[in-house]
Amino acid sequence: MVASEVRALFAVASRPEIVSLAGGMPNVAALPLEQLGDLVKDVVSEEGATALQYGSAQGDPVLREQICEYMTLEGVRASPDDLIVTVGSQQALDLVTRVFVDPGDVVLTEAPTYVTAINTFAAFQADIRHVGMDDEGVVPEELEEALVRAELDGRPVKFFYTIPNFQNPAGITMSAERRARVMEACERHDVLVVEDNPYGLLRYDGEPEPTLYSQGSGNVIYLGSLSKTLSPGLRIGWALAPAAVRAKLVLAAESAMLSHSTFNQLVVRRYLNTFPWKEQIKAFNSMYGERRDAMLGSLDAMMPAGCTWTRPEGGFFVWATLPEGIDAKAMLPRALNERVAYVPGTGFYADERGRDSMRLSFCYPTPEQIREGVRRLVAAIEGEIDLRDTFGPAIPTPTEGSQAPTPDLP
Amino acid sequence: MVASEVRALFAVASRPEIVSLAGGMPNVAALPLEQLGDLVKDVVSEEGATALQYGSAQGDPVLREQICEYMTLEGVRASPDDLIVTVGSQQALDLVTRVFVDPGDVVLTEAPTYVTAINTFAAFQADIRHVGMDDEGVVPEELEEALVRAELDGRPVKFFYTIPNFQNPAGITMSAERRARVMEACERHDVLVVEDNPYGLLRYDGEPEPTLYSQGSGNVIYLGSLSKTLSPGLRIGWALAPAAVRAKLVLAAESAMLSHSTFNQLVVRRYLNTFPWKEQIKAFNSMYGERRDAMLGSLDAMMPAGCTWTRPEGGFFVWATLPEGIDAKAMLPRALNERVAYVPGTGFYADERGRDSMRLSFCYPTPEQIREGVRRLVAAIEGEIDLRDTFGPAIPTPTEGSQAPTPDLP
Repeated sequence: MVASEVRALFAVASRPEIVSLAGGMPNVAALPLEQLGDLVKDVVSEEGATALQYGSAQGDPVLREQICEYMTLEGVRASPDDLIVTVGSQQALDLVTRVFVDPGDVVLTEAPTYVTAINTFAAFQADIRHVGMDDEGVVPEELEEALVRAELDGRPVKFFYTIPNFQNPAGITMSAERRARVMEACERHDVLVVEDNPYGLLRYDGEPEPTLYSQGSGNVIYLGSLSKTLSPGLRIGWALAPAAVRAKLVLAAESAMLSHSTFNQLVVRRYLNTFPWKEQIKAFNSMYGERRDAMLGSLDAMMPAGCTWTRPEGGFFVWATLPEGIDAKAMLPRALNERVAYVPGTGFYADERGRDSMRLSFCYPTPEQIREGVRRLVAAIEGEIDLRDTFGPAIPTPTEGSQAPTPDLP
Repeated sequence: MVASEVRALFAVASRPEIVSLAGGMPNVAALPLEQLGDLVKDVVSEEGATALQYGSAQGDPVLREQICEYMTLEGVRASPDDLIVTVGSQQALDLVTRVFVDPGDVVLTEAPTYVTAINTFAAFQADIRHVGMDDEGVVPEELEEALVRAELDGRPVKFFYTIPNFQNPAGITMSAERRARVMEACERHDVLVVEDNPYGLLRYDGEPEPTLYSQGSGNVIYLGSLSKTLSPGLRIGWALAPAAVRAKLVLAAESAMLSHSTFNQLVVRRYLNTFPWKEQIKAFNSMYGERRDAMLGSLDAMMPAGCTWTRPEGGFFVWATLPEGIDAKAMLPRALNERVAYVPGTGFYADERGRDSMRLSFCYPTPEQIREGVRRLVAAIEGEIDLRDTFGPAIPTPTEGSQAPTPDLP
C-alpha cells in the first residue's frame, strides 16, 4: 500500500485561504440539519433499544428493501436478499476485492480511475491494468485487447472495475453503445463487471443511460452509496451481487466488522421513510449543476491555449489536461502559492501516467469561489508556460494515444 | 470461511418463548434513551456539517484523546497518535490480521476463544493453534510449547491473541502471575501479543489485574471497545499499536472503508464529554453483577452431578462442562424444545474440541429469566443423562488434559 496523494494533499488544501478544487466532499451543509436533528432524536428515543444494539452482517432488512426502491430510480430492479449494506461503497469494493483477488490476479480499470480503488486493489496485490477512455467512456478495442492479453499471459482477470456515470476523476459518462459493447466483451470472456455508481442520480443535464447491472446476466456486481445524495458521515453504501457472491460478501463483512452500525441504518431507514428525499436530490442537483456551470464557464473563459478538459453532465469532477511539457504535479507548489488546490493526475493511475493532467472538483466550493479558484489556477498554469518557454519542458511529451480521456472541446 | 454457529443459532434463539443464554448482546435498553436522543439531536443540529461529512481514516482526534482518558481507568497510558478508531474492535482485529497474517502463518489463541476471531484468522488462512487454559488463564507451559513447536516447524508465529479479562467464552481472568509469564515468553520469542479487552471495566468483584499492554515494551497491540460499556450499535472500537504498526493499520482502514462514521464519533465524543459515563458503567456493573449472581446461584442449586462451570468476576459469560459422554451440540435440539438456548462449545475452537462444553451468557436476560433458563437447561441435561445411561455415551471421553478450562468448583 502507498499513502494516497489525495489524502496527503488535504492537509494543505484545507487551509482557509486556499480555494480547494481538490476534495470530493459533498456539500452536506445544504441539508436541513434542524429537521435531521429531530429525526435522529426520534430514532434513539423511540427505537433506541434496537438502534444501539448489534445488527446482522447483511444489514437491516427494511433498509435493504428501501434501497431496492431507491435503485429503481436508476432502473435497477433487485431483491433485498441480494443486497448487503456496507460502510460506504468503499467497504463494498474492499469486500469484493477480498473475496475475489489473490496476489497476482488481474483487475482491469479505466484510465484514470478512483484513487482509493487503486489502493484497495494494490493492497490485495492485484495486477492492475488500465484500459483507456475517450469522451464516450472506455475504448472497447482497448478493453478487448486487455482481456485477450491477460488470457495469453495465463493470468485470470477477476473483474473489470468501472464508474460508468460522471466518472471519478474523468467526469466522463459511458455512452449507451459503449455499455453494450463492454457487457458483450466481458460476457464473452466470462469476466465479472464491478459497476461503481455513487454519482448516478446527480445528473444536471442530458438523459441517463441504463446501468450495466440491468443489462447483465448475473455477471455484474453493483456498488451504490448514499454518501453523495445524503451524507458520507453516515457511511451507508451497498453491494448488489448474485446470490453465491453475496453470501461470500456477508461472511467477509462479518469478519471485517461483525455488523454495520444499526443506529446509522435506522437513521437512514427513517430518512427514506419520512423525508422528501427525492426533492432533496433535486435540490442537490440544482446546486451542483450551478457549480458545474461556474467551473466550465470559467475554464472556457480563462484557460490558456493548449489546455483541454472534459464536460461532465453530472457528478463532482472535471478532468483537465495541460499544454505539452507542463507537469501538473510539479506545478502544485506554485498553485498552492496562488492559493488554489487540485489533485495531480498521477494519483489516478497505477502506473506512471497522468503527469499532464489534474482533477478539478466543483462540489464543495461556491460558484464564486470556483471562479476565483480557476482564475488562480490559470495564473499558475501561465507561470509554468512561461517557465517552459524559457527553460524547456519539464517532462517528455506523452507518446501513447488514449491513456487520458479525450476532451470534448474543439 | 465457515458460517458461524453463533449466528446460525440466533435465528432460533430469538423466538420469544425461548430463554436465550446464547447471545452476547449487552442490555442497551438500560441506557437513558431520552437523554441520548437529545444528545444525538444536538450533534446534528449544532455540528451537522462536520458530523455528516467524511472524516479521517485514523479517527476523530478529539475522540482519540478521550479514549486515551477512558483507558486510564484500566491503567493504560497512551498517546492519541498511537490510536486508530475502528468499526468495533472486530474491525481492529480484522485490520491487525490483514496487516500481519499471510496464508500459513501461525496465530496462537486461547482454547476456547472468541468465535469471530477464529473466523477472521481463518479468513486470512492462518494456521490457528490453541493454547490450553486453566482457571488462572492460559497455561504458560503450553504457551511455551506452542512457541517452540512453531519455531521447530519453521513457521512464523505472527501473534498470540488473548482476552485476558472475563474471557469470551470461558469467563476466566488471567492472573497477575500468568500475565507476567505470558509477557516474558512472548518477548523472549519475539512474538507480538494482541490483547482484546472489551469487558475489562465490567468487573463485579475482585481486583483488576494490570493490562498486558502496560507490562509490554512495544510488543502489544491493545484492542478496546465501547460496545459493552455504551452501545454496540454505534460500532466504536479501537486499536492501540506501536507507531509503525499503527501507520499500517490506518492505511488498511482507508482501504477498508475510507473513514469511520464521523456522525457516530461525534455522538460518542459528546457522550464522553457531557454524560456521567463512569456512573453509567457502575450502573451496568450493578445490573450485570446481579445477573451473574443469578446464574451462578441457579447453577449451584440445580446442576446435576458431573457438571462443572467457571465463576467469572465480570464480563458476560460462564463456561460449563457436561458430564462424561454428554454432547452439548447434540443436546441443543432437546434444549430448544425445553425453550432454552446456549452456544455449544465446538464453535469456540478451530479444531474438533468443545463437544462437552457450552457457553452460557447472563448479559441480556433478567435474573428471573436466567433462573428459569437454567431450570430448563438442567431438564435438558438430565434428559441426556437418562439417554446416556440407557444407550451409552454419544461421544468418546476426551483424553487430553487442559484443553478445556478447569472449573473452579470443588
